[in-house]
Amino acid sequence: MTVSDAGTAPVAVGLIGAGLIGAFHGETLARRVPGARLAGVADPAPGAAERLAASLGAPLATTDPAELLADPAVEAVVIAAPARFHADLADADRATAAAGVAGVPLQVGFNRRFDQSFRAAHDLVAAGRLGTPQLLRSLTRDPGIPDPGRVPPSTIFLETLIHDFDTLRYLNPGAEPVEVYAVADALAYPDFKDQGLQDTAVVLVRFDNGAIATAEASFNAVYGYDIRGEVFGSAGMVTAGDIRRTTMTFHGAEGVASDTWRRNIDLFHDAYTAELAYFADCVRGGVTPEPGGRDARAALAVALAAIRSAQTGGPVAPDA
Amino acid sequence: MTVSDAGTAPVAVGLIGAGLIGAFHGETLARRVPGARLAGVADPAPGAAERLAASLGAPLATTDPAELLADPAVEAVVIAAPARFHADLADADRATAAAGVAGVPLQVGFNRRFDQSFRAAHDLVAAGRLGTPQLLRSLTRDPGIPDPGRVPPSTIFLETLIHDFDTLRYLNPGAEPVEVYAVADALAYPDFKDQGLQDTAVVLVRFDNGAIATAEASFNAVYGYDIRGEVFGSAGMVTAGDIRRTTMTFHGAEGVASDTWRRNIDLFHDAYTAELAYFADCVRGGVTPEPGGRDARAALAVALAAIRSAQTGGPVAPDA
Amino acid sequence: MTVSDAGTAPVAVGLIGAGLIGAFHGETLARRVPGARLAGVADPAPGAAERLAASLGAPLATTDPAELLADPAVEAVVIAAPARFHADLADADRATAAAGVAGVPLQVGFNRRFDQSFRAAHDLVAAGRLGTPQLLRSLTRDPGIPDPGRVPPSTIFLETLIHDFDTLRYLNPGAEPVEVYAVADALAYPDFKDQGLQDTAVVLVRFDNGAIATAEASFNAVYGYDIRGEVFGSAGMVTAGDIRRTTMTFHGAEGVASDTWRRNIDLFHDAYTAELAYFADCVRGGVTPEPGGRDARAALAVALAAIRSAQTGGPVAPDA
Amino acid sequence: MTVSDAGTAPVAVGLIGAGLIGAFHGETLARRVPGARLAGVADPAPGAAERLAASLGAPLATTDPAELLADPAVEAVVIAAPARFHADLADADRATAAAGVAGVPLQVGFNRRFDQSFRAAHDLVAAGRLGTPQLLRSLTRDPGIPDPGRVPPSTIFLETLIHDFDTLRYLNPGAEPVEVYAVADALAYPDFKDQGLQDTAVVLVRFDNGAIATAEASFNAVYGYDIRGEVFGSAGMVTAGDIRRTTMTFHGAEGVASDTWRRNIDLFHDAYTAELAYFADCVRGGVTPEPGGRDARAALAVALAAIRSAQTGGPVAPDA
Repeated sequence: MTVSDAGTAPVAVGLIGAGLIGAFHGETLARRVPGARLAGVADPAPGAAERLAASLGAPLATTDPAELLADPAVEAVVIAAPARFHADLADADRATAAAGVAGVPLQVGFNRRFDQSFRAAHDLVAAGRLGTPQLLRSLTRDPGIPDPGRVPPSTIFLETLIHDFDTLRYLNPGAEPVEVYAVADALAYPDFKDQGLQDTAVVLVRFDNGAIATAEASFNAVYGYDIRGEVFGSAGMVTAGDIRRTTMTFHGAEGVASDTWRRNIDLFHDAYTAELAYFADCVRGGVTPEPGGRDARAALAVALAAIRSAQTGGPVAPDA
Repeated sequence: MTVSDAGTAPVAVGLIGAGLIGAFHGETLARRVPGARLAGVADPAPGAAERLAASLGAPLATTDPAELLADPAVEAVVIAAPARFHADLADADRATAAAGVAGVPLQVGFNRRFDQSFRAAHDLVAAGRLGTPQLLRSLTRDPGIPDPGRVPPSTIFLETLIHDFDTLRYLNPGAEPVEVYAVADALAYPDFKDQGLQDTAVVLVRFDNGAIATAEASFNAVYGYDIRGEVFGSAGMVTAGDIRRTTMTFHGAEGVASDTWRRNIDLFHDAYTAELAYFADCVRGGVTPEPGGRDARAALAVALAAIRSAQTGGPVAPDA
Repeated sequence: MTVSDAGTAPVAVGLIGAGLIGAFHGETLARRVPGARLAGVADPAPGAAERLAASLGAPLATTDPAELLADPAVEAVVIAAPARFHADLADADRATAAAGVAGVPLQVGFNRRFDQSFRAAHDLVAAGRLGTPQLLRSLTRDPGIPDPGRVPPSTIFLETLIHDFDTLRYLNPGAEPVEVYAVADALAYPDFKDQGLQDTAVVLVRFDNGAIATAEASFNAVYGYDIRGEVFGSAGMVTAGDIRRTTMTFHGAEGVASDTWRRNIDLFHDAYTAELAYFADCVRGGVTPEPGGRDARAALAVALAAIRSAQTGGPVAPDA
Repeated sequence: MTVSDAGTAPVAVGLIGAGLIGAFHGETLARRVPGARLAGVADPAPGAAERLAASLGAPLATTDPAELLADPAVEAVVIAAPARFHADLADADRATAAAGVAGVPLQVGFNRRFDQSFRAAHDLVAAGRLGTPQLLRSLTRDPGIPDPGRVPPSTIFLETLIHDFDTLRYLNPGAEPVEVYAVADALAYPDFKDQGLQDTAVVLVRFDNGAIATAEASFNAVYGYDIRGEVFGSAGMVTAGDIRRTTMTFHGAEGVASDTWRRNIDLFHDAYTAELAYFADCVRGGVTPEPGGRDARAALAVALAAIRSAQTGGPVAPDA
């Protein structure tokens, strides 16, 4: 690669994780982001990396992520690992610090920041159109989970609500969470409550600018994949998110029918593409991407405080 | 009055309180409820009762509510007193008991129960269409308050949120609140925080059927009078409430414009009429109206628990 | 009646026509318009006037409208006759002229002008917010007709679309129709086409300010009673009307459900009340009400031109 | 290319026309359709093809479309020429016939068929959910035109409304237009009326299944790019299209603000991609794509009939 090519040659991106979302990210990198190409796939599950790499024309497939990381042809890596492998706060700090020392651009996959509706809401708040944010709401409702008995405890906080916690920070720019109160229960799948399942949760988060926020999650939305946000401020309110997938609306004798969202990779299809295109641009341009390690740490701190609050029954201050 | 007239003669209703909402209720009784007539008005403010009674053609005006109550021509009374005169739990119990002993039909003015949108939502839940309620939300946002320095502490809980607490019970029929956690602040009018003003509050309420509910209030909605409800259950979601006053929508180069609600007596105009018409029917028919003393007590218990929670910083169980 | 009572004594209104809409108007006059009282009912159908007058407490009932008109106690009359008795253009002119000569306030029941959404749209246009109107649309879709074999020819033009023609004039204030092109068919009830039924029609109306308008009607809306309007102008667009009856929206696994309007007396309940309250005020104040004979004539001229156009297959200029 | 590669090798597509929409299609082919690659660009404007080809990495650039067509490496061609070069009916027939003889897959760029909302509406109608279509509406409102003095006569019919005519056929599957009545005027830019400009038009189209349709266009939508469709049938109604670009809605003291669509390449971004991806698949698979020459001819016949109708002032049957 010559210097004059620097602006146009696609970044060679390796993918760790070939599950549902990993496969989708791989397809995005291989096909929808001109600034990137899929350089390889790693997944410990036998055959998973091979199958995905073959279908997408990636030259490398391995069960060992270290092999991918060691490949000199790989310029960047996308990690699509389950939440149960997500780090705790100390790990997050170490990873962020290591990335900083190594000069590696680190981006965290809070994809709602790349959804044009949530971004437009954020931009309005950041521009001061709402005055001071005072009340916020972010919710995630998944249309069911396939195997409730195998969902690890705290999944609803670490895998689902962590996106809402980041969304609340994104929609309240410059402010930081100072107190967290959480309740959680197994309402959708009560048979699995004894195994520690938490499928429904509401978290109240206070910010240092006075704003009071609510995050809400459920694994039980029979009507679709429901992601919404709301900010109320001294000069107005902004909402984002809609369960309707298209603008088509049918009115019949029995009622109204619309297509609704069913999967994150549909609702956030364009957001995921924008996220990775921006990441590739940052890598190529040597720019530090957002959201980064600091944002991941902040959302994780809220999630861990929420877990403790749900256990202790009282409000908890997130670790600074 | 002969027996044969019993079904059609309007009930003679006395009104206690000639303030903004009292005057509106008086007008409703005098003009919009065929089953009722306004028999008299009482208000301790000099001249207030006289002016209202004269404008509505009511035969009696007094500064002493007892005089109204003693008038044999008065068959029923509507009390439109400010929240600061609302009773505590023991008073509520005494009043309810006294009404029961006296055989007096007691109705409490939780007007959202008579709004056709909230009622339709309730009816769907009551009919089982949503399965088991799991998440609820009720919010009240007022478009500003005229004199923040004179708002008594706890007004947001006792005057505003008490309607949301009743709405949550109404939308979760058969279930009762078991735990309350509240945060409140003076975000809209911070200059009055030292005087105890609370203009913004979020309350988390857990019910005995597992449902987790959020009630939210603000005195700072520049965009209008915003009243909404939401129930999420195992079989679906229902929402009620809309900031738009009419279906008229203007699209111009600068954006979209709609008429929005600004006052409770506009948004709930029909609900207030339906409420008093139903009350008059109950009085005439000797039927016990709803919501009654038991509902008032339950909502008041949540409000008092919320006040304590906001003071202590921990969850509080409402008094049984 | 003494002069000093003039401002407050309700107007004694007689009602001609005790059918569905007549009964509704009678109830409105008797119960919902403080400025009016129902002085009597006339209907040629044996017993109809008696039954309605008795239920509403009106002192007079007759099968002869002339008797009602001759009663000195009757100060004003509401005519709720079927469209088949509506006059032609010469009759309309004679009636309007006679009312003028007699000094009788004449109001025509184009109730959409009293609907707050349509009125808000009109007000925006009249205030110049849309610039010059260029495209308009008004539609009426009824949820079926009980007895298609007995619907007189041209009913869709004279009873249904005449409201749309007036709405188009109302939403294009100051402009007048200059050309009409209409197509009509029996699509909902094709078995009755041979009997002259027209259950579906579209009418294109050009105005003297250049605006091009579409009026549309059907007797076949299985999903509800659908009334909508739209104005597009050089500075924006405004829409009015919504099939949803309340703001309640249910999202279930099968789709979305809302309550929809089913009858004009529900959708226009408040509009009818406002219409008659304003009429009573005009009678009491000696003010000429709107819309009046000139508006009736203009809408009728469009309807008659549309009937001719549908017969001849070409555009027709409405009679001046 | 070996046979085993047939399913995966991208189709080499040449592009004729490097204007606004041509550049967009070129970018789509080069970057967003994995099944295609941009093999070359032709545009008679000096330098236009070179610039676009260079920016997209296409190997061929020429001012002569014949050169592109003669290139053996080019397997398919996308024509993005202005409407004034669109053919008349005889030319359309000749082109379709020639394509048939040559075995060339011919697709016509009626992009709304690839918009997921319009497609969902079509699918409902095709599945019989609406019963028999009876009333249809399709509208196109452009947010202004840059140079009204240079717009050729009939542009609004041949470039804009032709999409609505196809949409009406798409939403009324199996039925064909039998009569057309059109009115058109220069309302947005009256100064250019003498030069033959038509910036506002309404067209009434009757179909052989009885359905009555309205197509409507304006070049004057200050509020955005407004594309909507509506089908009303014996069993329900379906609508598609919304002026709002995102789900973000701001409520402030002055009203409501939303992002609105401003350009076809934004609103139909995904539709254009789906259209070309499907075209590439058809070319690779030897499948005849839709919509094809027959659809182009049918929409063109309506447009030509509308032009005649607007000139003659009477209804016109489209040429069979």
